[in-house]
Amino acid sequence: MRLDRTTSLLLIVDLQTGLLPAIDGGEQAVTEAAWLAGLSRMLNVPVWLTVQYPAGLGTVDPRLAAAAPAARRWEKVHFDAHQEPPFAKALGDLGRKQVIICGSEAHVCVLQTALGLLAADYRVYWLAEACASRRHDEARLARERVVAAGGIVVSADMVAYEWLERCDNEAFKAAHRDFLKPRATRPLRF
Amino acid sequence: MRLDRTTSLLLIVDLQTGLLPAIDGGEQAVTEAAWLAGLSRMLNVPVWLTVQYPAGLGTVDPRLAAAAPAARRWEKVHFDAHQEPPFAKALGDLGRKQVIICGSEAHVCVLQTALGLLAADYRVYWLAEACASRRHDEARLARERVVAAGGIVVSADMVAYEWLERCDNEAFKAAHRDFLKPRATRPLRF
Amino acid sequence: MRLDRTTSLLLIVDLQTGLLPAIDGGEQAVTEAAWLAGLSRMLNVPVWLTVQYPAGLGTVDPRLAAAAPAARRWEKVHFDAHQEPPFAKALGDLGRKQVIICGSEAHVCVLQTALGLLAADYRVYWLAEACASRRHDEARLARERVVAAGGIVVSADMVAYEWLERCDNEAFKAAHRDFLKPRATRPLRF
Amino acid sequence: MRLDRTTSLLLIVDLQTGLLPAIDGGEQAVTEAAWLAGLSRMLNVPVWLTVQYPAGLGTVDPRLAAAAPAARRWEKVHFDAHQEPPFAKALGDLGRKQVIICGSEAHVCVLQTALGLLAADYRVYWLAEACASRRHDEARLARERVVAAGGIVVSADMVAYEWLERCDNEAFKAAHRDFLKPRATRPLRF
Repeated sequence: MRLDRTTSLLLIVDLQTGLLPAIDGGEQAVTEAAWLAGLSRMLNVPVWLTVQYPAGLGTVDPRLAAAAPAARRWEKVHFDAHQEPPFAKALGDLGRKQVIICGSEAHVCVLQTALGLLAADYRVYWLAEACASRRHDEARLARERVVAAGGIVVSADMVAYEWLERCDNEAFKAAHRDFLKPRATRPLRF
Repeated sequence: MRLDRTTSLLLIVDLQTGLLPAIDGGEQAVTEAAWLAGLSRMLNVPVWLTVQYPAGLGTVDPRLAAAAPAARRWEKVHFDAHQEPPFAKALGDLGRKQVIICGSEAHVCVLQTALGLLAADYRVYWLAEACASRRHDEARLARERVVAAGGIVVSADMVAYEWLERCDNEAFKAAHRDFLKPRATRPLRF
Repeated sequence: MRLDRTTSLLLIVDLQTGLLPAIDGGEQAVTEAAWLAGLSRMLNVPVWLTVQYPAGLGTVDPRLAAAAPAARRWEKVHFDAHQEPPFAKALGDLGRKQVIICGSEAHVCVLQTALGLLAADYRVYWLAEACASRRHDEARLARERVVAAGGIVVSADMVAYEWLERCDNEAFKAAHRDFLKPRATRPLRF
Repeated sequence: MRLDRTTSLLLIVDLQTGLLPAIDGGEQAVTEAAWLAGLSRMLNVPVWLTVQYPAGLGTVDPRLAAAAPAARRWEKVHFDAHQEPPFAKALGDLGRKQVIICGSEAHVCVLQTALGLLAADYRVYWLAEACASRRHDEARLARERVVAAGGIVVSADMVAYEWLERCDNEAFKAAHRDFLKPRATRPLRF
């Protein structure tokens, strides 16, 4: 039930320029998703990004694009990304069963994708500080529903320390210097 | 575990004119139940309404009657609607297993009906913003009890987007224009 | 999972004169436990009362004694009443499997008795407004632990309406007049 | 599911002098862990202490060392103590299956150790008032995750009264005088 970096994937859902200004906690969601995307890059954990209806909702926030330049990108029409056959096929082929999910709106596309993944037997980890909706309380409701369906709520710090496992190697030292230490005193709403 | 409009029913319990003035959150319950009843109508999801002791508690709120003119109506003497044999029979005959429930009082008739439906193997979805009691905290207690019994807490937005599934068709465009967009900025207490 | 008055027992734990002044919410616990004890009497539901170390902690609060004059009383040395063999024997003989529990301290004797009853296959209903501790948050912790162990949190209103089941008989009319209506507007902390 | 002093172990994780000043609730964690360590000593419950990277994070807080002078100490490099083979071996040899866990950071080393113990079939009891992180809300998130994984949240008072079981012997009288009574009025955040 702990996260393992060799079986993890970070999935960032619909953090798009046209949607974010309306989202309560949207700035924090982008900052923390980008932070974890940066650490993912250092630790060779794949990052995937989705967008919904980009003509109306805009492109991926540029801070995420910068933090995860090699991220695979998916455009979707279903709110649940896993209902898009190429996405489901590629995810199955990748063979990573622990999906850390975040994005907006928490109670629409993030929730539906999380439920789709759980139904397809993935382990879903809900990144609390980076799942956001127009109404904060509706994001909380989504989080409670995911937990009731078998998902696990995590913070980015939890993910990082589980991926790192121990403190006596170079990977930890680099991650601590570049990621953990700068984040340690940042105030966050979970 | 996601909602499917072809297997859903919206059940609105006892939102009656004589009871509502005493209910904390009664106005919101009526507004949001009517909103979802309107969307149900557009998407061909049946809506059922119950009343308890209309001689003393009054008739269904007229805004609900207007939003769901074709709704089937039930008068009941048991607090649990499912203990009324004609109701249970008709619900079984309808063959829809996902029941979105809301109304008042959350901790009496809504709760008892939810527990009755769960015991009869229906999937129960508790519409958070439209379940209300005299005491708000007692409605919360009802919600927690339904979750512990296997019910699922949803918001009307969750229901709508799950019923709609995707954004690239006419059903979504119409629902977005008439329902989703006007509701997007409305403040709500869940 | 609903309460049935023919299989219910109300168990009031250690609401004693020498302990109550130190309890946050002790007054409410007594008032609401006495209210439900009165209704129990009307509906022929047995009420049991326990006391711990009466030499130091005093006798049962007189309002409870008045509300439940025929209540069976137990003096115990174990914090868990069910560890007292005569209590466990009498409870088994009574054959009622739904135990509504309340009293003080919520996180000591009420909790331990609840866990003992759950381990002995009773269904335990935690009466939220009448379980209290010195520290309110410690009573909340006890409640969460009981839920995690399989207990069900209820309010006295929930219990009453489940015992009554329907609104079209004399039992309901009497209970409504004497109990439900006078309580309807009382503010409560759950 | 109640605690039994003959099968319990108190495990205090990384309450170190160099880390504590940054921890929200660190003072309370030390005070309450030391309190329970003192009672453990009186009741012959073993206490174990861990430290992580003492060169950087300092030694065990001296109040804990004083309260548990005979405590077994472990230095670890994995965040999950149970991933250290000598620790896992010694714990298995001890044969005590109920582990009361506390310390800092709640969402890193305490959480990972708790999850490791649960995976190894120990019963884990999360001592609410003595599990702390830099961000209080992140400690809450850790607690919720442990509960979802099968852990049980307790207060030190709960532990004490479960270990003591009854009020009519010398062990209770001594524990009440030296531990329970002095703590009764202490304000605590859980």
